[in-house]
Amino acid sequence: MTEPLGEFELIARVTRGLATSAQTVLGVGDDCAILRGSGGSDLLVTCDMLVEGVHFRQDTLSWAAVGAKALTCGLSDVAAMGGRPQWALISLGIPQGFPPEAADALYHGLADQARRHHVDVVGGDTVRVLGGVTVDVTVIGAVGVGLALRRSAARAGDAILVTGRLGSAAAGLDVLLHGDPTRAETLALVGAHQWPIPRCDVGAQLPLLGTVGACIDLSDGLAGDLRHVCVASGLGAIVFEEMLPATEALMAHAQARRRDPLEWILGGGEDYELLFTMPARAAAAFLQQWDGIGQVPITRIGEMRAGPPEVSLRRASGVTEPMPVGGWDHLRSPG
Amino acid sequence: MTEPLGEFELIARVTRGLATSAQTVLGVGDDCAILRGSGGSDLLVTCDMLVEGVHFRQDTLSWAAVGAKALTCGLSDVAAMGGRPQWALISLGIPQGFPPEAADALYHGLADQARRHHVDVVGGDTVRVLGGVTVDVTVIGAVGVGLALRRSAARAGDAILVTGRLGSAAAGLDVLLHGDPTRAETLALVGAHQWPIPRCDVGAQLPLLGTVGACIDLSDGLAGDLRHVCVASGLGAIVFEEMLPATEALMAHAQARRRDPLEWILGGGEDYELLFTMPARAAAAFLQQWDGIGQVPITRIGEMRAGPPEVSLRRASGVTEPMPVGGWDHLRSPG
Repeated sequence: MTEPLGEFELIARVTRGLATSAQTVLGVGDDCAILRGSGGSDLLVTCDMLVEGVHFRQDTLSWAAVGAKALTCGLSDVAAMGGRPQWALISLGIPQGFPPEAADALYHGLADQARRHHVDVVGGDTVRVLGGVTVDVTVIGAVGVGLALRRSAARAGDAILVTGRLGSAAAGLDVLLHGDPTRAETLALVGAHQWPIPRCDVGAQLPLLGTVGACIDLSDGLAGDLRHVCVASGLGAIVFEEMLPATEALMAHAQARRRDPLEWILGGGEDYELLFTMPARAAAAFLQQWDGIGQVPITRIGEMRAGPPEVSLRRASGVTEPMPVGGWDHLRSPG
Repeated sequence: MTEPLGEFELIARVTRGLATSAQTVLGVGDDCAILRGSGGSDLLVTCDMLVEGVHFRQDTLSWAAVGAKALTCGLSDVAAMGGRPQWALISLGIPQGFPPEAADALYHGLADQARRHHVDVVGGDTVRVLGGVTVDVTVIGAVGVGLALRRSAARAGDAILVTGRLGSAAAGLDVLLHGDPTRAETLALVGAHQWPIPRCDVGAQLPLLGTVGACIDLSDGLAGDLRHVCVASGLGAIVFEEMLPATEALMAHAQARRRDPLEWILGGGEDYELLFTMPARAAAAFLQQWDGIGQVPITRIGEMRAGPPEVSLRRASGVTEPMPVGGWDHLRSPG
């Protein structure tokens, strides 16, 4: 057998046998593992590997942006569990002859992003690789004992909320590949792809509300990530097209490229926004308060429902249809 | 500039600017970082990346052994700081068409080694790479607050002690490449290369003694690793040739191959033994007691001395000469 495996199949296959002990609250399967701390907080830990030619290309992402983004993946995972990131480690694989200036730029991009989010870079490894540049970043964070947010905690009737705007990173990559990335109108899209902002402040606030059910970060795309929540929670979900938050720049770029903006909004990965659920009444009160004080927009986009773990999309036309999964499978689709 | 950088130069170059905050006891520069825990223990954290074709080859290391060894690097780092490893994460990069059975074997090798050392595998990432198989493992451990052992804590006059036998892993690789790995006489050497045993039990006991100064694990080779202790402690060191512990199998294989056994004993990496220092009088008492109860041999091999941070070798002939550094630089020498 030499059939290639998709990422999720492979993870499921190899982690079946991984038993954990009492020191581990939650092992493989969510954005982070939850480790039982010895004091007043639990630890959250996650790692993400980015590979040149698979997850990024030199012509669309500077080395500094690669470093920042490699860290952002982990910061976003910790935020999605309601924690505060504190430490990071970076393992860097570089090909022979890699310019020292490029290595400097990559590390500085990562170190700047770490400083911005009050994270200490405390270790790492540097090795030679035979393929492209390979960056693996581990992030460790803290959360109050028992307060970590999980994908599995959505309840039927919960409203589904998201931070920020959706699909911008994917639209920005499209601008870089097929458009003019220097036009003022698309700069924000390009920025969303190259320098995504993890929602650390929002994430750390969510457990304090006491009403949040499930939470996940949008790294693979709304369709795929919301489906993870459905599977983990044993519920279905419906999303309303007209509520989906996208920027005018995305809509304009989609029109210019004659593309359906929903491709990016539903299927585009790497937005690093948070999706979370909350009882409908609590969500209404929360949004009213948040609109006045929140620095990041938060929008209600749908509802969790009893039923099989599938996501439906109610189109603006009133028709409801199953949402294509369209998750971003790192093993199959070259980014 | 496209001059390739050695591993240690590159690490030094890029970590110069990494400030840390009060939550971090010790950042980059030792076997592990030390993180301030919220309760009665500090955390130790380390990561190590292994790359096919650079650190291992399919024809000398089974996939199960690759998985075990990737974890062993981190277990040994935690042991070298006096801690107890508790959790691990694995990021795995695999080329297109990699057989699922091989991925299974790699994970099972890692999971078995984890179980043996009471470590929970709690997370990871699986991605596609364009080069060889790439495994990055993060290990997190615990140690009593303020009790972590550091490279910098050797004192002039301290005896230098090592666990186990030296050079066996390098000699075992030589058997695999140039000898007959099925001969009974060399099986133990091959085993030392393929299935090295991290000294977790010894490591966790060392802080309890109250007399241990510096500690480091022998991953790059005695010459290079002892030099790290010298530099960090601001001392010199002398090692006595006739005290160096090597197996009879190594001596016989060196003779058969007409090689100087010191090449492997002083320069061979991946033994994953521990080297630590202790005041001479305490060391004598400790060794007398240990010889009766210890499951792993521990041998005194030399002494820390005031002076420049260099290692000398007193030959059996009585001549003292500077020890060639011969560290195992992962970026320069293909394993």
